Amino acid sequence: MDLADIGVTGLAVMGRNLARNLARNGYAVAVHNRTASRTDDLVNEFGGEGTFIPAHEVAAFVASLKRPRRAIIMVKAGAGTDAVIEELAEHMEPGDMIVDGGNAHFADTRRREAALRERGIHFVGTGISGGEEGALNGPSIMPGGSVESWEALGPILQDISAKVDGVPCAVHVGPDGAGHFVKMVHNGIEYSDMQLIAESYDLLRQALGATPAELAEVFREWNKGELESYLIEITAQVLDQVDEATGKPFVDVVVDQAEQKGTGRWTVQSALDLGVPVTGIAEAVFARALSGHPEQRAAARSLEGPSLSGVGGRELIEDVRQALLASKIVAYAQGFDQIAAASKEYGWDVDPGAMATIWRGGCIIRARFLNRIRAAYDADPDLATLLAAPEFASVVNAAQDAWRRVVTTAVRIGVPTPGFSSALAYYDGLRRDRLPAALVQGLRDYFGAHTYHRVDREGAFHTDWSGDRKERATGS
Amino acid sequence: MDLADIGVTGLAVMGRNLARNLARNGYAVAVHNRTASRTDDLVNEFGGEGTFIPAHEVAAFVASLKRPRRAIIMVKAGAGTDAVIEELAEHMEPGDMIVDGGNAHFADTRRREAALRERGIHFVGTGISGGEEGALNGPSIMPGGSVESWEALGPILQDISAKVDGVPCAVHVGPDGAGHFVKMVHNGIEYSDMQLIAESYDLLRQALGATPAELAEVFREWNKGELESYLIEITAQVLDQVDEATGKPFVDVVVDQAEQKGTGRWTVQSALDLGVPVTGIAEAVFARALSGHPEQRAAARSLEGPSLSGVGGRELIEDVRQALLASKIVAYAQGFDQIAAASKEYGWDVDPGAMATIWRGGCIIRARFLNRIRAAYDADPDLATLLAAPEFASVVNAAQDAWRRVVTTAVRIGVPTPGFSSALAYYDGLRRDRLPAALVQGLRDYFGAHTYHRVDREGAFHTDWSGDRKERATGS
Repeated sequence: MDLADIGVTGLAVMGRNLARNLARNGYAVAVHNRTASRTDDLVNEFGGEGTFIPAHEVAAFVASLKRPRRAIIMVKAGAGTDAVIEELAEHMEPGDMIVDGGNAHFADTRRREAALRERGIHFVGTGISGGEEGALNGPSIMPGGSVESWEALGPILQDISAKVDGVPCAVHVGPDGAGHFVKMVHNGIEYSDMQLIAESYDLLRQALGATPAELAEVFREWNKGELESYLIEITAQVLDQVDEATGKPFVDVVVDQAEQKGTGRWTVQSALDLGVPVTGIAEAVFARALSGHPEQRAAARSLEGPSLSGVGGRELIEDVRQALLASKIVAYAQGFDQIAAASKEYGWDVDPGAMATIWRGGCIIRARFLNRIRAAYDADPDLATLLAAPEFASVVNAAQDAWRRVVTTAVRIGVPTPGFSSALAYYDGLRRDRLPAALVQGLRDYFGAHTYHRVDREGAFHTDWSGDRKERATGS
Repeated sequence: MDLADIGVTGLAVMGRNLARNLARNGYAVAVHNRTASRTDDLVNEFGGEGTFIPAHEVAAFVASLKRPRRAIIMVKAGAGTDAVIEELAEHMEPGDMIVDGGNAHFADTRRREAALRERGIHFVGTGISGGEEGALNGPSIMPGGSVESWEALGPILQDISAKVDGVPCAVHVGPDGAGHFVKMVHNGIEYSDMQLIAESYDLLRQALGATPAELAEVFREWNKGELESYLIEITAQVLDQVDEATGKPFVDVVVDQAEQKGTGRWTVQSALDLGVPVTGIAEAVFARALSGHPEQRAAARSLEGPSLSGVGGRELIEDVRQALLASKIVAYAQGFDQIAAASKEYGWDVDPGAMATIWRGGCIIRARFLNRIRAAYDADPDLATLLAAPEFASVVNAAQDAWRRVVTTAVRIGVPTPGFSSALAYYDGLRRDRLPAALVQGLRDYFGAHTYHRVDREGAFHTDWSGDRKERATGS
């Protein structure tokens, strides 16, 4: 019997599509699923697409792989992943590779990688973005792990990944948890992108009294310019959709409570640990949380707002486009800051330009815009912030008047735009010579003797606020 | 030899002051510190204030306590706490009580409580707020732990706590980690309060060209009304302070990078886990993080903003006062939501009105305002949100025009007010009949088949976006 080049265990829709993608690219693929019927269904239905080697037991699955073995796990991330890893590892030997393609938390991936490394097995936590369709036709792939594992897996992953201008959307991100970390931030940015799109739609609808279909046309127009991206494209399609049962716009029959699956939340939690402000992602996650509390919203229905009528002309559309672009730049700048901070913290040496490159295709946040980010990091790999790169500084400088008009319009008419306004506040904070954080430090020294630094001298100081009000240098 | 009523180990400034507070209240206090000289110094310097029983060894310290023993740990929160607990526990017996008065993470407190419970020892994680001065003269005390431990400790803690209208600022919060959780949220709210004060100062200074001394007078005035609070009071004092070395306003010689010690960050991380939007606290934590990246701020110095000159009249002062009050109400509403969510999640049965009561005195966020929160929860313990309570709805309804003017002024002149604007966005989101989260759900269904709910029918649905665009009911 011929051996398989690579294996996939876990054949729900993502795993099945990834296995088919591998087979279509000429790889012999071992396939396994806990419920054997799913394995058989895959072979029966898609066996013609390439070489599948089905196995009903884990031992047989591992035995069907060429050495060094390469097995991809495609199960729902969680405690169950550990059990699947252990089952595979029991049948493996040093030099073999286990790839986790689920959305695991990067800390779990670091733990698993360290444990398997002790047994000589390479553990590769990899982000795979693009949903079902991407898994089948070419996702964006973000693998972490050892250099050796990348050498053995990289060519395969690049073959099955999306390509943009002939460049594969798969690259070695860095050691241990780096791949899952970058995928997590990708998802966090995705939250922010969607929130900004939702605010754009909502504000234009409220201010102009436009219909979803009319706004679909606006998004289609936007998709021809700087904002060109998958999410803008499908926004137009969702807004165009008419509900068959009621004849109403689809978006009006959907319950307005957005759910979350963890990666957005993890992104913000990690950013807090790293001391990186990711306000755009945080506001997006919290906007979903707010939407998911209908009992509070019902109780607050009596709170007053301004009148909504007749507040904007058609020029608001171009203003919103610019606010969306500028706010999006802020969210990406924050996300890339977070990747840089984690890379430093964990010694990953992640190449930010390469991340922008592999996000150009296959994944949910794919956008023309990412070429600019790549160019900015190519020009200066040590960029302090994307906002300061000439490519982006010129855009936000040009957009800032429109951005301010959009936020003031939203505030005046009572439409919530937490994404736009927090991004603008970040922008205005970043460029400030002096921030009122000095007052915060003064208060902290007053009530907690936390000390402060001076602008004109080295050292830490404390003022005896409850005594003579004189300043003393402190040890620290 | 007489035995002590209670003991304190860890005699840095907080522990020393708490021991003195106990002694001044007539309790015989066993005192211990790893470095024995600190113990001796305390007795030598303050021995006249009451009965101190010094011990140089842990065994002697524990032996000097009446049974059941009550020992308070006042060491810097962290891994060291476990070692101190273990040392104490080794010399203790079932029924004894170990109190951790540091700012431990509530998850650590839950773990420690469970472990000690197995050994029959009561572990009480307690929040103590009020800084050095509060520890000495009466802090706000938030103990978790068993009912039995509260019965044995409560009278002592109430004696040494602050009193407001004769009511002690100490109450049993709930089991295991409840006390440290509530203290954590208290600190998160403190972050938000300080951020809003800093924004008020900054905006008025920039818009009116006012001096810190002139703004001190504004805060002093505010402290006579609804905003009366410790933080407003000391803000006036910090703004009045003149630097002796340079003759400049104190606030202008302090480095504008605000530090954080963890509890603000933890509050936001926990809120993300609980699905509670705490945008006010998050923006405050992130504003500090932003201030702490001078290299980014330097790189962004060239980003453009609007001109600052001549934008506001004196009426802006009253507008800012109202924006501060309304934004503060939002931050407290969010913090109390988080306490309610955790109480439900962990089965703590925390009484929100009691928390407002013990925060009225002793602690950093003490404020007249907390009486209203207590009244709101007294009137309706199951309040869906503080914002909907008549006391607060009327305030925010009356303030909303001013609040909008403040945010639009800040945006127009380029002063960052992330606290004001995120609070207003939350307000506008909460009171909305329909949120654009419906569009987000549509997008999620498009790219990830995440399904959505309909406003007019039960069940989950998926539209075949890449196929016939028809809707299908799904299992889940």
